Parts: sequence; structure tokens; C-alpha cells
Amino acid sequence: MTITELKTRYAGGATPSEIIGEIRDKTIAWNDPALFIHLPEKSVLLEIAAAVEAMPEGLPLWGIPFVVKDNIDVAGWPTTAGCPEYAYLPTKDAEVVRLLRAAGAIPIAKANMDQFATGLVGTRSPYGVARNAIDAEFLPGGSSSGSASSVAADLCAFSLGTDTAGSGRVPAAFQELIGWKPTRGLLSNRGLVPACRSLDCISVFANTAADALLVSEAVSVYDEADAFSRKVIPKGGIGARFRFGVPVSPDFAGDPDTPGLFAAAVEKLKSLGGTPVMVDLTAFTEAAKLLYEGPWVAERWAAVGGFVEKNPDAVFPVTRKILEGSKGWDAASTFLAQYKLREHARDAEAVWKKIDVLLLPTTPRIHTVAENLQEPYGTNATLGRYTNFMNLLDLAAVAVPAGRARSGRAPWGVTLAAPAGWDVVLLGLAARFRGEPEIEIRKPTRIPLLVCG
Amino acid sequence: MTITELKTRYAGGATPSEIIGEIRDKTIAWNDPALFIHLPEKSVLLEIAAAVEAMPEGLPLWGIPFVVKDNIDVAGWPTTAGCPEYAYLPTKDAEVVRLLRAAGAIPIAKANMDQFATGLVGTRSPYGVARNAIDAEFLPGGSSSGSASSVAADLCAFSLGTDTAGSGRVPAAFQELIGWKPTRGLLSNRGLVPACRSLDCISVFANTAADALLVSEAVSVYDEADAFSRKVIPKGGIGARFRFGVPVSPDFAGDPDTPGLFAAAVEKLKSLGGTPVMVDLTAFTEAAKLLYEGPWVAERWAAVGGFVEKNPDAVFPVTRKILEGSKGWDAASTFLAQYKLREHARDAEAVWKKIDVLLLPTTPRIHTVAENLQEPYGTNATLGRYTNFMNLLDLAAVAVPAGRARSGRAPWGVTLAAPAGWDVVLLGLAARFRGEPEIEIRKPTRIPLLVCG
Repeated sequence: MTITELKTRYAGGATPSEIIGEIRDKTIAWNDPALFIHLPEKSVLLEIAAAVEAMPEGLPLWGIPFVVKDNIDVAGWPTTAGCPEYAYLPTKDAEVVRLLRAAGAIPIAKANMDQFATGLVGTRSPYGVARNAIDAEFLPGGSSSGSASSVAADLCAFSLGTDTAGSGRVPAAFQELIGWKPTRGLLSNRGLVPACRSLDCISVFANTAADALLVSEAVSVYDEADAFSRKVIPKGGIGARFRFGVPVSPDFAGDPDTPGLFAAAVEKLKSLGGTPVMVDLTAFTEAAKLLYEGPWVAERWAAVGGFVEKNPDAVFPVTRKILEGSKGWDAASTFLAQYKLREHARDAEAVWKKIDVLLLPTTPRIHTVAENLQEPYGTNATLGRYTNFMNLLDLAAVAVPAGRARSGRAPWGVTLAAPAGWDVVLLGLAARFRGEPEIEIRKPTRIPLLVCG
Repeated sequence: MTITELKTRYAGGATPSEIIGEIRDKTIAWNDPALFIHLPEKSVLLEIAAAVEAMPEGLPLWGIPFVVKDNIDVAGWPTTAGCPEYAYLPTKDAEVVRLLRAAGAIPIAKANMDQFATGLVGTRSPYGVARNAIDAEFLPGGSSSGSASSVAADLCAFSLGTDTAGSGRVPAAFQELIGWKPTRGLLSNRGLVPACRSLDCISVFANTAADALLVSEAVSVYDEADAFSRKVIPKGGIGARFRFGVPVSPDFAGDPDTPGLFAAAVEKLKSLGGTPVMVDLTAFTEAAKLLYEGPWVAERWAAVGGFVEKNPDAVFPVTRKILEGSKGWDAASTFLAQYKLREHARDAEAVWKKIDVLLLPTTPRIHTVAENLQEPYGTNATLGRYTNFMNLLDLAAVAVPAGRARSGRAPWGVTLAAPAGWDVVLLGLAARFRGEPEIEIRKPTRIPLLVCG
């Protein structure tokens, strides 16, 4: 279901209570015990729907059902971050959830995820593996696995994920969704269990770029109370002709089909007025290496290390091994790695002088659940190839479906990326790429225009 | 001597060779063996002067002599950073020195400093204590001690210092100079021995704000090759009326005279159209604590730790103790401290909503050399009270003389500070504070207008 479709049904007389009731029944019928970590009773959801019915129908997301990744607080529902022993009961909504509710949207469940948002696969959870809604043999993608699956299974109109190293884009690629990873700090992180606090972004899964844009208008609000929130200047603009970067020798990790799908995506962008420009991605991939081979893993330890030390057995074994790998980095080497990142970022700027947007495979390939269980670290590392560096280099990105590999069975996608502030432009281009009706990009009113920081 | 005075002499027929010759003789007569670490032969300086004579006289700093702190490279002259065993012979000028030479300025010597720019006192150097040119009993201030002393002793028109935690402001206060600490990244750091690389600024000492502004116009150039260089947006503007912050209960460290001097500075700013606003500086001082009580000291270790480990006896004892204090901070605690800094910075923003500029004591008081030698850490910590947080919080600052304590013997000063990009406005206000002829603030042409970063 799209937001647009739901709006049409509401315009035709449907009520939020009806829609939410339908969805709740569909959720039960979908029968994936690993999809949600918290699914409230139907009566609870109908109460929320009734409250929304009392709100003005003109609200931009009036009656629109959404799912929330279980590292983002919804008041009164437990937050686990994928670890039952870590659970707490928040009394306040995360700021983004609060804004969505204020716009009329209805949270319907908390979604499964790779524990502590550490992983790109969706298998690293004691709650099981959320089913890939296109083909259950394949990975759902992570860490926002349940958020993606619930949209792909048509159980909500959009969902909130998070994205530090790719967790909001990989699941979009694997389940044929739009995955918008906003500019860092454009959305408030208040009420989010941190992964790498300096890099975390709350992200959005939707069926169309137009839907993601509608959500973005509700949630792109500067939050003075979140030290990582930024006044992002909306930037860019793409005319009839634009330049898009394509990596010199893309890595498809041996997949027989994805090179062809990528070539088709290049042709598609050309048909939309784009001129491909071959770019050397060394600066980007060197930055990516810093994330998992450098001290940034220690941010994860800073977030949950105390808990892990007290409850070692509560932590998923793969996750614990990664978290414990953060030890051994001292302050001096942390600063040195941050300098290196500055240098890679400076080098990356040279690439941006030649192009407007970057077209990349979201992942080199897709893996099956079985392949991942056999090779849990290797497959995960492969998937992050083109996602890891985006937050380090302060980019915005939109993952877009781009056909299927393996004779039409395995979903796959590409990512459109650009520097901080290009979010709305990227969503507009994603809409054109998907052949959606042209998005009317209003002058964003909710995004303050002041400074970057 | 001021740049303006020298320009008048040049307009009257004097030549750079004459001026440089005079200055060289004066330097010998001044007879402070601790002032310079490298003073070239007269013949070398006269050669440079002759080369400048061949350049167009219209250059903005044609024939203007300047001194360079010995952690900034001048091609062919050794760089020691205050440690003889660390010395190397650079083949290229630091970028800022290159820009000054291109504008016609003439480097005449490399100045003594607190070793590795670690200190605010000027006594932490194996080359001795550069004499305070106003009164030798008092500290020259550091770490840019020789840079300040050489301007105060009238041996050059301006000098380059550096300023990480106050090294470009404390010596200005103690020797009655303008000490401009630019916005971080406004000046290139290429060719600088790092102290805390994420915070370091090259700074300028001058006799007048007008002179500092002239220098700023030559050196405020974005440097693509320095990853910490930023495209700073020139900001602000102060009209006939403005609001200036004054700390609720300023710390004067028991000095009997500086409270009165500060009160007079407040009155002076009021007479210039300013309305004082009492502000709570907690966010600023909490940020300051992070610098020396937190992991940032490890940046110093990242810069010179390898050298210190190999040459422990080459390092000044006080300095070594500080540098070795950086151990024990791991990556996780480094990130946590950086989060804390973000939060303090956010809290500080609330203060900036109430004021245009901040008026602070540059230091609570001044100490004698003897006091410092007795209490080397304590006196140093006192001096950083109002300087430490500026780079952490991304502020620009200008230290301005503000009278003398101890019956007219002990120089002292205040600092005007504002957020990044306010440099030119602060220099303009400093000129008015000092009763200099109104500075004509041209639209800065050398400062790119694009983005901050």
C-alpha cells in the first residue's frame, strides 16, 4: 500500500479504524513470528486509530500506518534493540515518532532487527530472521530487517529504520523498496538507541519515492535537544541534464546477474538526461575501511559496552565478537583515524566537482540466508561495500529497486547518493528513475535554512 | 612599529633593505638570547629584502617584516617546535608563510615557544624564557612567547603564532598586543607542527587591529591541500548598538587589580554602543575541562608521541609529563568525550542567541616568571580559564590590551569572541575598543563564500 492509495481510500470514506483493523488481520495472516518484536493487541491499535480520527483529516499523514524499528522509542512499548535482556519501557516517543504522530500517522508495531543495529544481514537477532517478503530464501537485509519486511509484505505504508553503515539501504535493495538514508542530523536521533552515535541516522522505507518525500516533510525538523541534530541547508537541484558518477570497476562480488542490472540502471539514468562520468572511488572505499577496521566500532562499545560486560550471555555471539573487537584502540589512534577520515573526505570532494549525483550498486549482490549462516562475517562485509562510507563522508542517499537477479527471483537495487542536503533532489530523481509520476518538490517549509554544522 | 607606519616610510622613499637592516641591528641590541630559535645572518635577510624590492610596491604587505613561531615552516630555516632534537629542515614554506611572502612580507626570524606548543606561560622551552618586553619580571605568555615578545619589542610589524588552547591570546594579553585567533580552518595549517590537529590555528600578533586585518586579508585563503582548511562564511556585523555577553561571576584568580580593569572594559564597550548581558558560562567552561582533563591531550601524543618515546630525555620535563598524561584514554571514552563536547556546544548556542559578542578576561591575571617556576602546572591552568574552550566550541577571538595591573606594571587584556566567521567583525570592534581610526572593512575578497565544514 502507498500513502497515496490510502489517502484515496480515506477520501472515499474509509476510516483509520477500518484500515488499521484490516492491517492487523493481515499481519496475523502473514504469520512471521520473527517480523515484529512487539505487536500490540488489536484493541490498542484501534484506540490509537480512534484518537487519530478525532484529529483534523487534513494532516499530511492522517491515518497512515507505520512500523518502527525496535531501537527507536514508542512510548509505552518496550524498546529492545534486538536484545530482550536490554529491554526498557520508554515513557516518551522518540522525537521522529512524535512528529509522525502529530502528522496523523499511526505506529502499529516494533520491528525485528540485527541486535544493536550491528549487521547488514538481518540474521543477527535472537528473535529469528524476519522473512524476506519477496523470496524467503534470501536475506531480508539488515539491520532494519523487520522494518523493510513489513513494508514489502504490505503490512504498513512506510517504516522507520536506522542507518549507520547501510542498515536503511541494504534491506531496501533486498526487498524492492525505496530506502531513504537522510543527511546526518536532518532527522532527530532523540529516543534512538545509539549504534555509532556520531554517524547514526533514522531512515525511512517506503514503496515510492513520493511516499518517502511525504514522510521526510513531516520529520525533517531541527531538534535543539539532540546535540547531533543539524540545521541542514537543502541543496542542489537537477535540471534536464545532469552528471552522474559511476565507479570505474564496480565490485559485484562474483554475481553473474548484477553487472547487467547495474548497466541497465546506467542506461536508465542516461535516458533521464544524465551523463555518466567514470569516477575513482578510492577515497570513498578507504573511508569505508575506517568504519569496521578502525576505532568507530568503539562507538558501539561506548553505547552498549557496559551492558555487554554485565550480560555477556545476553548478546548474540556474532554481535558480541564485533563489539569486543573495538578494544585496543586508544585515544591517539582514534584521533589519527579521524584525521585520515578528513583527508579521505577532502579527496572525495574532488569527485563531487565532476558529478551531481553518484550511482552505485546498493550491494554488490544478494546472499541467501543459508550462505550467510555459513559465512556470517564475510557476507556481511560484502554487503557494506557501497554503503559503509556514506555517513562518514556526510552524504545523503536513496536506495532504489533496480530489477532482479537469479532469473527474476532475487531483488537487487542501486543507490543514488549526493552530499549533505541533497535529500529532496535525490528523492525526486529516484521517483523519475522508478517511473513514478513526477514529484512536485515544494519549497521545503519544515527544513530550517540557516547553517550547517 | 605598525604596518601603517612602515607603509608611510616606504611612501617617503625608504627601502626594505634599509628597514630590514635597521631591524636586524635593533634585534642584536635587544639582546635576548631566548627570543629567537633561529635568527638568520644579516646578509640572508638583506637578500630577501632585495628580492622583495624587485616585487611590485603595491603589494599589500610589501617590505613588512614579520617573525614566525618555530612550529611553522620557513623554507631553509630549521623548524624545532621548541625542541632541538626534533629539528628538521623544511624545503617549503608553510602555506601561510608562502601567502605572506607573495604579499611582499619579509620573514626575519623563528621565535621561541613553549615546547610543542604545550603551555600558556612561555617558560617551557630548553631555549630559555623569552623576555616580556613590557616588564621582564612577568611571564611573556605562551606558547607563542617569542612571537609576542618580538612585536612588543618593536623588532617586527607582526608575527605568526599558533593557538590551540590560548597560545595566541595569552601572550597578547601579557605584552599589550592584538592577538587574533582566527576561526578554525580559516588559515591553512599546512607546514605547521601539530599540537592538537583538530583544533590548531595559526594566529597573528600585531600592534593594531588594523594591522591584524591587513594580515588576515593576505592569509585567509582556503587550502584544498589541508584537510582541516574550511571555506568559512564571513558572518555577522555590528551596528551602532550591539549586545555583549559578560560572565556572571568572572574568575580573576584573586588578583586585586584585574576586576577593576575588566569593569572598565565593560564600560568602554558600553560607550561604543554595547549593552552588557550577563551570561552563564557553564557550557563553555565544561567544554574547556575536556581539553586538558579529557582525551584531546592524546592529539598531542598522536603528533609527537613517537618522537617522545624514542627521545624521552630530549623533551622538557613539564611537557613530557603532560604528554604522557594522554595515555589511558581508549577509543570509546574518546567518542564519549566528543559527544559531551557536542552537548556543551549545543548548550553554548543558547548563550549566542542572547548576545552578539562575548567579552572575557583573556586571563584571570598575570603571573611572574618566578611564580610560574614555583607552581608550573597551577599557574598555567589559571591562564587558560577563558581561552581553552574557544577552538573546541568553534569560536573566533581577538585578544585586546585593556590596561595594566599592579600599579601600571603588569599588562593585562580582554578578549572579544564570537562564533566561527565573525573574525573581521571582531577585528573591527577591537579597533574601536582601542580607539584606533575606524577600520574600513572591505568586502573580504580572499575569503571564499561557499560553505562551512
